[in-house]
Amino acid sequence: MYCYDVENMSTDEKYVIIGGDAAGMSAASKIRRERPDCEIVVFEKGEYTSYSACGMPYYVSGVVSGFEKLIARSPDVFREKMGIDVRALQEVVAVDPQTQTVRARPAGSGAASEYKQSYGKLLIATGASPVRPPIEGIDAPGIMGLSSLQSGIDMRTAVEQTKPKRAVVVGGGYIGLEMVEALLKIDCDVTLIDQASQVMATLDEDLAALIQEYLETSGARVLLNEPLREFALRSDGHVEAVVTDSHTLPADLVVMGLGVRPNSELARSAGIALGARDAIRVNRRMETSVPGIWSAGDCAESFHRVLGKPVHIALGTVANKHGIVAGTNMSGGDLEFPGVLGTAIMKVGDLEVARTGVSEREATEAGLRCRTATIKSRTRAGYYPGSERMHVKLVVSEQEGTILGGQIVGGHGAGKRIDTVAASITGNLSARDLVNMDLSYAPPFSPVWDPVQTAARTLV
Amino acid sequence: MYCYDVENMSTDEKYVIIGGDAAGMSAASKIRRERPDCEIVVFEKGEYTSYSACGMPYYVSGVVSGFEKLIARSPDVFREKMGIDVRALQEVVAVDPQTQTVRARPAGSGAASEYKQSYGKLLIATGASPVRPPIEGIDAPGIMGLSSLQSGIDMRTAVEQTKPKRAVVVGGGYIGLEMVEALLKIDCDVTLIDQASQVMATLDEDLAALIQEYLETSGARVLLNEPLREFALRSDGHVEAVVTDSHTLPADLVVMGLGVRPNSELARSAGIALGARDAIRVNRRMETSVPGIWSAGDCAESFHRVLGKPVHIALGTVANKHGIVAGTNMSGGDLEFPGVLGTAIMKVGDLEVARTGVSEREATEAGLRCRTATIKSRTRAGYYPGSERMHVKLVVSEQEGTILGGQIVGGHGAGKRIDTVAASITGNLSARDLVNMDLSYAPPFSPVWDPVQTAARTLV
Repeated sequence: MYCYDVENMSTDEKYVIIGGDAAGMSAASKIRRERPDCEIVVFEKGEYTSYSACGMPYYVSGVVSGFEKLIARSPDVFREKMGIDVRALQEVVAVDPQTQTVRARPAGSGAASEYKQSYGKLLIATGASPVRPPIEGIDAPGIMGLSSLQSGIDMRTAVEQTKPKRAVVVGGGYIGLEMVEALLKIDCDVTLIDQASQVMATLDEDLAALIQEYLETSGARVLLNEPLREFALRSDGHVEAVVTDSHTLPADLVVMGLGVRPNSELARSAGIALGARDAIRVNRRMETSVPGIWSAGDCAESFHRVLGKPVHIALGTVANKHGIVAGTNMSGGDLEFPGVLGTAIMKVGDLEVARTGVSEREATEAGLRCRTATIKSRTRAGYYPGSERMHVKLVVSEQEGTILGGQIVGGHGAGKRIDTVAASITGNLSARDLVNMDLSYAPPFSPVWDPVQTAARTLV
Repeated sequence: MYCYDVENMSTDEKYVIIGGDAAGMSAASKIRRERPDCEIVVFEKGEYTSYSACGMPYYVSGVVSGFEKLIARSPDVFREKMGIDVRALQEVVAVDPQTQTVRARPAGSGAASEYKQSYGKLLIATGASPVRPPIEGIDAPGIMGLSSLQSGIDMRTAVEQTKPKRAVVVGGGYIGLEMVEALLKIDCDVTLIDQASQVMATLDEDLAALIQEYLETSGARVLLNEPLREFALRSDGHVEAVVTDSHTLPADLVVMGLGVRPNSELARSAGIALGARDAIRVNRRMETSVPGIWSAGDCAESFHRVLGKPVHIALGTVANKHGIVAGTNMSGGDLEFPGVLGTAIMKVGDLEVARTGVSEREATEAGLRCRTATIKSRTRAGYYPGSERMHVKLVVSEQEGTILGGQIVGGHGAGKRIDTVAASITGNLSARDLVNMDLSYAPPFSPVWDPVQTAARTLV
């Protein structure tokens, strides 16, 4: 057990955290456990802490009834139960590593309201923001994105008030597809456009085609190779249509789902080095290039275990892990984060989609020589009620057959099997190891050979 | 590619397989692929080949409508499509390694009908049979077990014809619990008795208690520490009641679920060494102690990867793997079976139960110093509709925290997560590795920390 000596408290024991979501609050909680008496200040520019950004599409569609359900812990709880000084609606505008101070101000206020806060150790957990292309009208009413919890609340309000009949979703990634599902649920006419030749760029084309097929069967219109060119606005300034090279798509609501960019400007201005896709460069201890400053979550890099290089992946699971590693090291521990696999899962209507490691395309681009197999199997024994179709694609190294990645598209129960592949990659296992693996089987759960094994069997 | 030279066919190219279910037919199919022109004879004492024994409880309950759905491939298909000479209803009664012959006869006929069949290479895949204690009346009408497909057909017929009002299930293992579920489904009054102090001996007591609680809530009566003593029979010879030390339990139907024993008598008589629990001793190439004779499936030993010693585990997944390894080696290949983890999954009503590796009790009995954690979490994000409770227990080595085993009991979607634990054991990973693992998350699938990680987090 750590015993804290109040007499010897130094400025080192003053922790400042910028950003009060998954990474920031995981770190704050970890620091509090290790250092019961230290001072922890968290600046959060929004109103809420520790909310589930991933739950927002379900709030917009009404599957989740109240947004407060998405909040794991409020600022008040952190303050009262854990003695963490969470300052909501306070924005940090500058970091000065020389004087070990940050400058903050009430969110939305001017420079006149600025004040300083000194720190012993600083964590930058500023998250990421949706990409908003510099197209005229991008800020028009009716054009929305999902970023902060407030943006989710705003979108649901807009949906309820305007009852959109026609929506255009720009970008076929996770948020885009989840919003297609959400909008179909409220009987909206949905068109999805993507500038790429497939939806879900993190999957290979063959598996992505299954998702597209499903979207179209579900009633969505999917237009590929269709970059967004401009917005047409009504006379009252509200969006009226999305214009591409070949279509003008009428829209009461436009959802921007073009991915996110790390909020790393604050760090850059402070002289902190940036890395992959302008995310804040960190080592495995989540230390930035500047001593005494850590970074974690959507604004920071992660090491990709298969690619063997830093990447930027903005996901809540990663942010939580980052936060714990940063918090541990900030409070005197010694922990390394071994990195990510880019594992992700989502649901589009009744279709489950999951991936981990590298896709065939990513492997090829990275110069990893690989073999692949794509198989069709079932979620349960064929004779058991509710058995549904599922597809698995595996990517293995050409020589050793080491598993490098997996993709799954299928019915109920298909998706979570990606974790078996993720664990296999983590254990450096081969297709042969996966074939031999003692996976669970009973008719309500799987065919005798789990579908991920069926894929592996074609690669040994 | 293998090129087969017909001119040089030797007796080595005459393959005989005893037993036409998972192990035998997997081996036969593998041999056929490798040796397109060889002779393959399969003796099967029953009428059916390659059926799903695991599906039988669902056939008895009517969840699966026709037993023919449980048959993956019939003898005719093997004969016509694959040129495998399947001899159904033919029983092998002796093996003579000296002369490389087996003696067989039509099932149920006398010694006069015997004939000989020579072999070059022999596979013994005789399966396992339900334990039937030597209690008077054990063969009485109304006392049934699940072993062959025929036994499942018989049980369903009995259920349909006699419409049992009261049933006693003897033994709280997989088959026993699945039959409790099956019998509750047809509105039968079910009592489960077990001589142990818990149901599901392959789980630890704490997790097993959750299953018992569920069974009782579902309307079953569970009596523990209740060994079966005798049967009371009606004047017409049909079973009337099950008698224990403290109860006389009226029963129209008694289901015996006391586990299975390997059918190894034929091998023993031929001078083949037996091993764990009298299963046929095999090495990792599935070779028995007698050259030219292999064994696979429920009659054979497996190497337990955590215990580091041979065990007897009768499961279809293992039988399939055994069969492929045996078939590969018999047909000139070189493949080793690295062993099992005792992974298993089942459904009791809406409760999912799964386990892998060693339980705390097994670890202790084997002298493995371990630590454990049992946690309560949820199958989905707490705010997402359909989120259900689930419990995870992890067993790790005391020093390194290497994962040795896992157990899961919980709602829909809980059970298959055991595969993540199985893969982690296979990869020799630690609790820390599991905490760091990039597992999939989205609100409809999991909390941000997958429950198996939540368990691992308490062990680092």
